[in-house]
Amino acid sequence: MTEKIKGIAASAGIAIAKTFILRNPDLSFERKTVSDKESEKKKLNDALEVSKKELTEIKETAERELGKDKAEVFAAHLMFLSDPEFVGAIGSKIDDEGISAESALQDVSTFFIQTFESMKDNAYMRERAADVRDVSKRLLAHLLGVSFTTPASITEQTVIIAEDLTPSDTAQLNRKYVKGFATDIGGRTSHSAIMSRSMEIPAVVGTKTVMSQAKDGEIAIVDGLKGEVILNPTEEEIEEYKSKAAAFKEQQEEWKKLVHEATKTKDGAHVILGANIGNPGDVTGVVNNGGEAVGLYRTEFLYMGRDQLPTEDEQFDAYKEVLEKMEGKPVVIRTLDIGGDKKLKYLPLPHEMNPFLGFRAIRLCLERQDIFRTQLRALLRASVFGKLRIMFPMIATINELREAKKILFEEKDKLVAAGTEVSDEIQVGMMMEIPAAAVLADRFAKEADFFSIGTNDLIQYTMAADRMNEHVSYLYQPVNPSILRLVSNIIDAAHKEGHWAGMCGEMAGDSTAIPVLLALGLDEFSMSATSILPARSQLLRLSKEELSKHKEAFLNMDTAEEVLDYVKTKMN
Amino acid sequence: MTEKIKGIAASAGIAIAKTFILRNPDLSFERKTVSDKESEKKKLNDALEVSKKELTEIKETAERELGKDKAEVFAAHLMFLSDPEFVGAIGSKIDDEGISAESALQDVSTFFIQTFESMKDNAYMRERAADVRDVSKRLLAHLLGVSFTTPASITEQTVIIAEDLTPSDTAQLNRKYVKGFATDIGGRTSHSAIMSRSMEIPAVVGTKTVMSQAKDGEIAIVDGLKGEVILNPTEEEIEEYKSKAAAFKEQQEEWKKLVHEATKTKDGAHVILGANIGNPGDVTGVVNNGGEAVGLYRTEFLYMGRDQLPTEDEQFDAYKEVLEKMEGKPVVIRTLDIGGDKKLKYLPLPHEMNPFLGFRAIRLCLERQDIFRTQLRALLRASVFGKLRIMFPMIATINELREAKKILFEEKDKLVAAGTEVSDEIQVGMMMEIPAAAVLADRFAKEADFFSIGTNDLIQYTMAADRMNEHVSYLYQPVNPSILRLVSNIIDAAHKEGHWAGMCGEMAGDSTAIPVLLALGLDEFSMSATSILPARSQLLRLSKEELSKHKEAFLNMDTAEEVLDYVKTKMN
Repeated sequence: MTEKIKGIAASAGIAIAKTFILRNPDLSFERKTVSDKESEKKKLNDALEVSKKELTEIKETAERELGKDKAEVFAAHLMFLSDPEFVGAIGSKIDDEGISAESALQDVSTFFIQTFESMKDNAYMRERAADVRDVSKRLLAHLLGVSFTTPASITEQTVIIAEDLTPSDTAQLNRKYVKGFATDIGGRTSHSAIMSRSMEIPAVVGTKTVMSQAKDGEIAIVDGLKGEVILNPTEEEIEEYKSKAAAFKEQQEEWKKLVHEATKTKDGAHVILGANIGNPGDVTGVVNNGGEAVGLYRTEFLYMGRDQLPTEDEQFDAYKEVLEKMEGKPVVIRTLDIGGDKKLKYLPLPHEMNPFLGFRAIRLCLERQDIFRTQLRALLRASVFGKLRIMFPMIATINELREAKKILFEEKDKLVAAGTEVSDEIQVGMMMEIPAAAVLADRFAKEADFFSIGTNDLIQYTMAADRMNEHVSYLYQPVNPSILRLVSNIIDAAHKEGHWAGMCGEMAGDSTAIPVLLALGLDEFSMSATSILPARSQLLRLSKEELSKHKEAFLNMDTAEEVLDYVKTKMN
Repeated sequence: MTEKIKGIAASAGIAIAKTFILRNPDLSFERKTVSDKESEKKKLNDALEVSKKELTEIKETAERELGKDKAEVFAAHLMFLSDPEFVGAIGSKIDDEGISAESALQDVSTFFIQTFESMKDNAYMRERAADVRDVSKRLLAHLLGVSFTTPASITEQTVIIAEDLTPSDTAQLNRKYVKGFATDIGGRTSHSAIMSRSMEIPAVVGTKTVMSQAKDGEIAIVDGLKGEVILNPTEEEIEEYKSKAAAFKEQQEEWKKLVHEATKTKDGAHVILGANIGNPGDVTGVVNNGGEAVGLYRTEFLYMGRDQLPTEDEQFDAYKEVLEKMEGKPVVIRTLDIGGDKKLKYLPLPHEMNPFLGFRAIRLCLERQDIFRTQLRALLRASVFGKLRIMFPMIATINELREAKKILFEEKDKLVAAGTEVSDEIQVGMMMEIPAAAVLADRFAKEADFFSIGTNDLIQYTMAADRMNEHVSYLYQPVNPSILRLVSNIIDAAHKEGHWAGMCGEMAGDSTAIPVLLALGLDEFSMSATSILPARSQLLRLSKEELSKHKEAFLNMDTAEEVLDYVKTKMN
């Protein structure tokens, strides 16, 4: 049996095809001085023109294939190539120091990259460093006349092997030819992993070694279900994986039949399967995958990648679009959750030593009421176009919830007084993502209409472990009994007051967690749209009553491992 | 009535005396080039010699008055003045650029300061920037021939008014003359605040405006009980504060009578009042203040301010000294809690985006078992010299506790097999400072001999708010019902298994929290040594049984404000 290279399963499915190794081009050169400065500047201009032309094409393909928001990064690249601070500095260096265009480019881009990277705690500026690196690489390749392998040049069925895929790379992937990919670096939430899921291409990331082991043009199997890559497989293995791929395809067909089914468990309990979205454009995917609700609309994206705050009308249009497209199904819209690792360039925030424990989300909105009230007005005005639920993020104390509600109702009263129609059916709820709120859920349930459990944050605060930090990521344990007790406490508290409780963290779509969450009585599961049908298929086979008999047992276990083992053997 | 300037009460007591305003000297100069480079270098050498002489004297005074560890900062300053990288660079600048010594010093020190400060997330290196700034200021003053007011020149009773006090300043305070101080900046845990408490000098910090309002030589009242400063008070006010000062002195005398008393509540319940210490030298203060235990010995200080790890024997000596000095009273020694905001220069740790949620304490020790096992052996060997309790910090999961205990018992078995005597009475417990552990306390209680609640961390994780971050410090709410529920859960879980539960965060010594903690059944309160007698005095007047009747009420409140109000009106 051929050795399997282990990685992280980033996107489900199995691909079998010839490898296409995406190598970084050799861009080394010797620094030299030049006598003919004008000819160097002409070389620079030519390379700029070719790069701009390429980027314009990539941007158009990306807009068509991936949507407008995913294409924005190329607009940023193009902007750099026309930025006088960048381009002008290269020209001046050629003039003043008499060095070659590539030397001048290298000096200027290094300066920009270092400047951006030195802003260590500003994620937005760090991204700009990645942009400069990406665009300078393209420009340098053209200056040196080095050809640049890009996924755009692929014209037969392949599996891409790469160290990592940059935004430029993924934008050029042609779904017709690219059957799967495997990378050395990245995790489940890296750019390439997210893209692979939204393009539905099987992918394994973070293998560490696939680049060094793979040869160009050999057959490779990418098993995005188990997170494994097999290079140069035997005939038997190919047959084995072909039938696995066929089985998965068949399963997908089965799942597709469930698009219009309600999610009823074997014993007739009805749960709601919703989707997490970031943009109005994502609603199509929700509907196509049979989503019964939008369980979380992250409004941050409306505020990102722009130069100023979105206006009330811009927001109103977005909220209205989502509500209308969902045709009366519930839509939970979360108010702005900015700060922490999410920054806006036009909203300077204080430097923080621990941004995850910092000034973000509702904490910021209660202080910057100008921003908050604008969003609330847009939401209230949109409320008549569907079934709106407003949700506040990062609520830690009852006073914060009271304050946020007070501001909301003030804006509502003002709108109504001015003659604007506002729905009277809006539910007002909160994220349950801070341990303090989870512990006091019975008191919160008297003042919130619903809870949605944000497991990503709830787990990291409860464990005191940053889930992005690889040294402590072992503590990210969704089924640790301590987490399950808090989840259980939240659900029971909601039910006692006649409210519903949902979950919008990654845990809600995880097949291991689903039986546990059903046993605890969770009413609404919100996940990536592509997870809805597999989850529905699983839930149809489970009995809520049977599973709930196990609740006392797993809530009184010592470790996450014990719970996992119990779920596998007794709850499936 | 004269206006009161509000600040933060940093050290209890009342001082009334003439002001001594500690102004920063005017160190401005014009940059210039010089022709006689040799004479500039001689000027530099002279200034270096004078500065070294001064610093040597300050260091000796500090060692005598404040203890060896507090004097170490001056050893660092002296090292800088002999560091060829620093001093040599100044000399070379004079030679190469022909600029004056002060210009060269300014360039070199700016470079060092910027380099250190750019290491934003490395607290150790940031401290080095403060050292360079402090030492360069001294050197520059001598180069310019500007005289330098220092607290050492004070020869009459005064109250010092300053923007802030540097380590050099506090080291020179003469307790005979300096009756109190007030500063513009700083908080309860700033350097100057900590020093004021250990020197028992009344102090108010963080007034923001006292420097701009005070005049030299006028009378000032520093009220370190309420955190207020009165400048130029009326005769009546002086009389009023004199009697307040007398009353406080009388109260201190009353408290001193309780040194040898047991801490028994009005209804006869016995609780233990212990102290938190950082060094063996602190035990004297514990004994003098009637401490019944060391509730927390933070061993990190053994590892700090040095160039390499402390040896097993160095650690053994320190632990033995504390155990012996406590004469059979319990001593809880916490194993190394390094990482987060506490770094060691000889132990490089990964850069972390959220150090408080990172690789620290037990997480680090379980990986760096070389460091951990050395400490455990030193503790085990010292165990025969007193009543040792070993405590693990930052335990989040039962597996971590099991792993830490396994390593401890392996080392114990090895020592016993080698014929070393080890006590069989050592209790092995854990900090309760992570929400996950607090929620699952009943399961932890089956495997730990005791719990000590670390409220500083427990509150910040439960609220998801960095208590050092001023934008969210309003969420640091010790009596929020969510925190009290976790504390109650921890205490009940310990009792159910026949164990004791203590608390070693700042909350344990807070007079508002004490009735609440007594009601919840806390067995051991560990605090700064100077808080023990006031706490004992308070506890002697309280009835545990009466207070415990309020438990259900305050655990079912909505907000911290409600609890505070209830405690003030019903539980005192």
